[in-house]
Amino acid sequence: MSSKVGAKHETRSALIETGMDIMLVKGYTNTGIQEILSVLGIPKGSFYHHFESKENFAIEIIRHYDQFQTALLIEILRDTSHTPLQRLKLYCETYRTKLNAQECKRGCLIGNLSQEMSDQSEILRQELSTVIRRWRDMFAQCIAEGQKNGEIKSNRSADSLAEIFQSGWAGAVMRAKTLRDTESIDNFMSVMFDDILTA
Amino acid sequence: MSSKVGAKHETRSALIETGMDIMLVKGYTNTGIQEILSVLGIPKGSFYHHFESKENFAIEIIRHYDQFQTALLIEILRDTSHTPLQRLKLYCETYRTKLNAQECKRGCLIGNLSQEMSDQSEILRQELSTVIRRWRDMFAQCIAEGQKNGEIKSNRSADSLAEIFQSGWAGAVMRAKTLRDTESIDNFMSVMFDDILTA
Repeated sequence: MSSKVGAKHETRSALIETGMDIMLVKGYTNTGIQEILSVLGIPKGSFYHHFESKENFAIEIIRHYDQFQTALLIEILRDTSHTPLQRLKLYCETYRTKLNAQECKRGCLIGNLSQEMSDQSEILRQELSTVIRRWRDMFAQCIAEGQKNGEIKSNRSADSLAEIFQSGWAGAVMRAKTLRDTESIDNFMSVMFDDILTA
Repeated sequence: MSSKVGAKHETRSALIETGMDIMLVKGYTNTGIQEILSVLGIPKGSFYHHFESKENFAIEIIRHYDQFQTALLIEILRDTSHTPLQRLKLYCETYRTKLNAQECKRGCLIGNLSQEMSDQSEILRQELSTVIRRWRDMFAQCIAEGQKNGEIKSNRSADSLAEIFQSGWAGAVMRAKTLRDTESIDNFMSVMFDDILTA
């Protein structure tokens, strides 16, 4: 890669990284392009060289966040050194620890933008739907594995269990953000694992 | 009431009503005071006569929305012509019908603002927490009644069941908004009533 191409690529990555950090805290509407440019010392023209619009920029941020989260999901949900049920617990524990460390702030970019932007931008809604469905399929795959080895109940389809796991988790994280404690997360984990999943 | 006092009161109510309608669709940040004033044909000075700030205005909107929702909750959850379990089902069915009628848009103002504003405004976060806790107590009361008459499982406290009912429901509504279908609501109801609540 020539240094010019390299620099161009670096600018784009820096915009996405910084935009993601700010959008995770402030949401879409409250995130100002000018604020991101000021943090990075990049001129406005450069932003519009890389992204058509703020919406288009947000799409790239969602994809970047998705890549990072998908890598984590794969690491946890496909780790055969643990049973499928243990992996699902590990997923919840990992995020509960993270949420506690950040005083229940920020939460999940996909959840935050879903709530904020689904009625505001059809293009963002579709992108968020795609990510949510793909993550759900990864949970369903892990659950199906647990049903096969007999440690997860089979009274419902893996898809139905993955749906309640994912949406229940999203609701619990939302509560944790507002009430500023992880009680709702603890309660979710207890109900989910003791009453719903474990065979 | 003199006509002057009456008119003053009407202006305040109109601002809150219109603000609520717009905020339910657009969220806090995207709602412009100017837009509300234009809809109503009210001068800017009048707004600041009634409300100190946009944040203060949002608090009044949350309280107004809460009043309306609490009345509905009381109507459904304390209707002794149905059993407690039937009332909880009726609550879900009522909101599912409403959500379907509005093509899964808007959702719940408390959930929307929780997700958008919890990290942005401490005063709004506290107001939203109060509402959420009070609603949860109403669900818990109905669940405790069902545990007493034996139709709801008693393996968990009414508070724990109310928490999972409320946060699971919030997560399912959020999913419905993003995926634009009520599949997540149907799945939540099935798991909640068949596997978690019914004794």
